[in-house]
Amino acid sequence: MSTSPEVSAGTYQRARRPEQKLERRDAILGAARELALRDGVRTVSLADIAARVGIHKSALLRYFETREQIFLELTAEAWREWVTALHAGLDPAVPGPASPGPGEPGRAGPGTGGPGTGGPGTGGSGTGAAALVADVFARSFGDRPLLCDLIAHTPLNLERNVSPEAVRRYKLTSLGAVGEAAAIVRHALPGLTPAECTEFVAAMASLAGALWQIANPGPALAALYASDPDLAGACVDLTPRLRRTAEILLAGLAPSRS
Amino acid sequence: MSTSPEVSAGTYQRARRPEQKLERRDAILGAARELALRDGVRTVSLADIAARVGIHKSALLRYFETREQIFLELTAEAWREWVTALHAGLDPAVPGPASPGPGEPGRAGPGTGGPGTGGPGTGGSGTGAAALVADVFARSFGDRPLLCDLIAHTPLNLERNVSPEAVRRYKLTSLGAVGEAAAIVRHALPGLTPAECTEFVAAMASLAGALWQIANPGPALAALYASDPDLAGACVDLTPRLRRTAEILLAGLAPSRS
Repeated sequence: MSTSPEVSAGTYQRARRPEQKLERRDAILGAARELALRDGVRTVSLADIAARVGIHKSALLRYFETREQIFLELTAEAWREWVTALHAGLDPAVPGPASPGPGEPGRAGPGTGGPGTGGPGTGGSGTGAAALVADVFARSFGDRPLLCDLIAHTPLNLERNVSPEAVRRYKLTSLGAVGEAAAIVRHALPGLTPAECTEFVAAMASLAGALWQIANPGPALAALYASDPDLAGACVDLTPRLRRTAEILLAGLAPSRS
Repeated sequence: MSTSPEVSAGTYQRARRPEQKLERRDAILGAARELALRDGVRTVSLADIAARVGIHKSALLRYFETREQIFLELTAEAWREWVTALHAGLDPAVPGPASPGPGEPGRAGPGTGGPGTGGPGTGGSGTGAAALVADVFARSFGDRPLLCDLIAHTPLNLERNVSPEAVRRYKLTSLGAVGEAAAIVRHALPGLTPAECTEFVAAMASLAGALWQIANPGPALAALYASDPDLAGACVDLTPRLRRTAEILLAGLAPSRS
């Protein structure tokens, strides 16, 4: 709720040049990001963001349609950054060509079978490579509280209060991220099919969003958990839980093929 | 938004006797249930519920603390009804003693190994029994849109705006339901450990909540999906997707044991 000098009487300048507009836009996204990380996405209003940037709410609406569009932009940005982290965590462990871009989800050619990749007898889900994929995926979400918080809000709220064009742009980004993540998984575990890799990534993303909300209760509920042993079972430790679920999914994909 | 005759000038009667109070409480829950099923949990306000019952908002607040407490009561009710459906779907297929109550999550004694249960070579996840469990679980959520919608709202909103006592009561109900569901799974798949059965149930419930929101977009997003083939990959068909994920999880639990 801090007010910057900019908003003081008489000194407020409307951004007119393209670079000023981009700067203002970045400032709005940065303010929303900081507030959401501190207080949780659900509590941050358009007025909070405007106050943090030090502009009026009406000025903010020249840059974004709605509060939801601001958070949808942050979600798209978080997906792109998440894919970069998956590349960083998994590409060095698996030699061979870099995984294909979003337009080319399946790799032709033989599997690389590099170090850590299981032999053919494991159906491609080599234990070493599967453990690495499970760990990198668990941390990719566990280390990104804002992405996890946003995932749960996206279908529930964010996609419902923006223009069709804004939601379309967002969907293409998120689908692209899932496709590229699936290609990264397939590069590490070539025994899985492209569809199975997509299934794994989509399930992990949905679970990360749902479990993060459970792992991060409000202050009243957190106090209750701490005080009542009967409720201990309701607590979730996010990264270990995601790692274990990833291991289960990767172990089950090939054997459950119909 | 319909007004019942009760709310007309002069005819409104305050419920005074205990049975009248219970009736009024049921009417409030029933109105919230109908509106949430029709319009989605996120759009239903306290004022909408009061208008549907035909009482004033202040009168409604004599029965429930907040809008969120009303929906938390509906969630508890939905969990109990869901467990009953799991019993109905799985108990007849697996002979032997009924699964234990919530206070006794693990069964001592040897596995029953009834028809449809896999032999020891499958690690207890017999294909027939596992397929049945996957199908019954997928339908238990797919057939219950209100439960699925509520699951996503529970940690995000409902548990954050009620008294500690209300959230504690709710948590004991939901934990009891998960524990009983895990016991039902273990009865069908005695090769799994109690912890693995709980892991399966918890993952399925979280996924059902998250995927239901994706499978049920608002009108604008649904129109976009229908019109744009690039976005087809974002659609989810809830019950088949849950069935497939359940099969993967059940196939992966035993092999991924550390």
